[in-house]
Amino acid sequence: MSSPEYSHHFSVQNLPFGIASSRTRPSPQCATRLHNTVVFLAELHEHGIFNSIADLPTGIFKSPTLNTFAALPRSTHTSVRHALQQALQKGLATLPAGSTADITEVEMHLPVSIPAYTDFCCSKEHNLNAGRAILGRETLPPCFYHIPIAYNGRASTICVSGTPVQRPRGHFVDKTITTHKEVVYAPSRALDYELELGIVIGNPVPVGQRLKAREAEEAGHVFGLVLLNDWSARDIQGLEMIPLGPLNGKNFATTISPWIVTLDALAPFRSPGPEPQRESVPPYLQDSGDYAYDVQLRVELEHTANKSVLGETNANELYWSLGQMCAHLTSTGCGLQTGEVLGTGTVSGAAEGEYGSLLEVTKGGTVAKKLGDGTERRFLEDGDVVTLTGWAGDGVGFGECRGQILAAEEEGWR
Amino acid sequence: MSSPEYSHHFSVQNLPFGIASSRTRPSPQCATRLHNTVVFLAELHEHGIFNSIADLPTGIFKSPTLNTFAALPRSTHTSVRHALQQALQKGLATLPAGSTADITEVEMHLPVSIPAYTDFCCSKEHNLNAGRAILGRETLPPCFYHIPIAYNGRASTICVSGTPVQRPRGHFVDKTITTHKEVVYAPSRALDYELELGIVIGNPVPVGQRLKAREAEEAGHVFGLVLLNDWSARDIQGLEMIPLGPLNGKNFATTISPWIVTLDALAPFRSPGPEPQRESVPPYLQDSGDYAYDVQLRVELEHTANKSVLGETNANELYWSLGQMCAHLTSTGCGLQTGEVLGTGTVSGAAEGEYGSLLEVTKGGTVAKKLGDGTERRFLEDGDVVTLTGWAGDGVGFGECRGQILAAEEEGWR
Repeated sequence: MSSPEYSHHFSVQNLPFGIASSRTRPSPQCATRLHNTVVFLAELHEHGIFNSIADLPTGIFKSPTLNTFAALPRSTHTSVRHALQQALQKGLATLPAGSTADITEVEMHLPVSIPAYTDFCCSKEHNLNAGRAILGRETLPPCFYHIPIAYNGRASTICVSGTPVQRPRGHFVDKTITTHKEVVYAPSRALDYELELGIVIGNPVPVGQRLKAREAEEAGHVFGLVLLNDWSARDIQGLEMIPLGPLNGKNFATTISPWIVTLDALAPFRSPGPEPQRESVPPYLQDSGDYAYDVQLRVELEHTANKSVLGETNANELYWSLGQMCAHLTSTGCGLQTGEVLGTGTVSGAAEGEYGSLLEVTKGGTVAKKLGDGTERRFLEDGDVVTLTGWAGDGVGFGECRGQILAAEEEGWR
Repeated sequence: MSSPEYSHHFSVQNLPFGIASSRTRPSPQCATRLHNTVVFLAELHEHGIFNSIADLPTGIFKSPTLNTFAALPRSTHTSVRHALQQALQKGLATLPAGSTADITEVEMHLPVSIPAYTDFCCSKEHNLNAGRAILGRETLPPCFYHIPIAYNGRASTICVSGTPVQRPRGHFVDKTITTHKEVVYAPSRALDYELELGIVIGNPVPVGQRLKAREAEEAGHVFGLVLLNDWSARDIQGLEMIPLGPLNGKNFATTISPWIVTLDALAPFRSPGPEPQRESVPPYLQDSGDYAYDVQLRVELEHTANKSVLGETNANELYWSLGQMCAHLTSTGCGLQTGEVLGTGTVSGAAEGEYGSLLEVTKGGTVAKKLGDGTERRFLEDGDVVTLTGWAGDGVGFGECRGQILAAEEEGWR
């Protein structure tokens, strides 16, 4: 069941969308959250709260995913949000009987069915930090200033916050052997998290059509944002990714937070990006104004009931905007499907304490990080709980994105 | 409408599955092909031809994709094939009236809805040839002998043979400038094909379950094979793929042949792989016996009505088996979904004339290839038609996988 800890992230200024079920309402369905109260939208719809919104199909909020709703125009999302704000400002007691539940009584599910997942790598500082940790020198990918780089991830293993993550088994170079290079097949010894935001696509872009960066948000293609932990087995990834990029080192799990925070809720927190873009970009990639979002992000590691903050950073570090990511991905005609997820890549700052991955914190596992309980980490251990949180300002946050590491499966599966 | 050219690929020993429509039957539905006759399966089903098969749901062949059928156990696919062979050996005239159409009267569609696409790189010779062309030296990826390497592709742009392919626009280093390195945004100048086979997944593997290589075929996880052209913009790919692998250089289109040839049809053409596996592999990757398939593959380029064969090779060149690809992909728990496609990677031999991509034929565009009409190619030009064909032996082939290059879109889209 869900945690009551982040009540203050969910004021009437937020009203994110998610999919919840409860003992009395076993079918997962669309909901919003006000502080620690989950409000089921189907009941509100039936009671006429959205009557002024013409194009809202009957029964849309009974769906077990938000895809149908997310695909509607942005103006409809805005209208639903306004209607909800009006209804909720009258007080929870005025809502239809039985339309609410306490957050501790519900189970949250994946908010959307996810047809595709692409993970970008938009933080310049993360690239520089990772280059120092892996290669021993400051380096950026050759196209970093030209395009937002990315790889296609595996959509089938995106899971919702709270789902345990099993340590994957794979091939990697055994670093305990110092005399020669030997590839072993074993449980990963370099399991890591990545602190990211995820874009959830709303209004789809048909195959063959292309977006301009400036239009992506306006036209409702970005339904909203979630926290995203792109779990990474650094050793498996390290061996497999030359030259085709990561596969099994990332395929095993990606965790997202359950509540999709809309761009309407985040609008007051727009901010300029970290620096003027260095290279001139073609028209499709041009974005302007305050196209970053001031979202404070934090990653914590919990072990033996002791929590240590491992990194705190801000999404306005990202060199490329949400619109630029969407535009670049569609620029060769592959379209965007409702519910697909675009990760921003690990968000990191330049300084110690601002790193979004253990790879950065421990310099590739070479420098142990001391936790609050006195133990040390180079990479994640079985039983560790990693929690991402994020908040834009008073009353508008993402709650948490949490996962516990389980021991690798015994060999001899199936 | 479809080509009558490959009649000899479709004997009663083949009987592949596809999705066809016609003027009189406008809803795409399940079909098989005997020489140049397309046989619609729903009619046969209604007329009791599959009555002895207990677990075949009513109406299954009216579906606009083969996914529901592909997900059934391999024994059901085998039974349907046998029933079809018996019915067709009595002669086409004995089939229900109106259940057939000439191949030239039908339109073929994507045979399955494709939830994911992963492209492997299993040909050792392709890796060596590409290394020579790009880096000027023979080199294999560091993990080549340990695991079948792969990247996640974009499922949304997989299209069926005959669909035109628009030249993508993207970022790349302008090689016409010799004094310095300059990145431009322009239509690709290095458009290429890749001659591959594609595995179509049948019986799914749930997330969290893992396959062993030896079980993948037996247990019906491989529904069948298609020809696959993994169109590649080498210049866009070259800039973007360090370090995360290809994205937009591949995302714009992947073409597959319309008829899924089953492993039952290919069983007589099993063959040993190219060499004993060099490295010992863990149990999940162990495969044994004749686990390759003797499928002859050819790529032709058509220009001004003149066809030139650019390469001819054989799928038994592949170092890793179908089962090994499936097992490796699922080994960290990401499962397999019915209809998802696994590409083998470009199939190439060692010798001139056995190359599966222009990159290899023209040594990275440095050596022009003379075509039959006297023109030269370094990479594909607008209007070029690329056709892949493949055949396993008398009467069992794949037909064609064909696409014509269209000029890049004008800038100023949308």
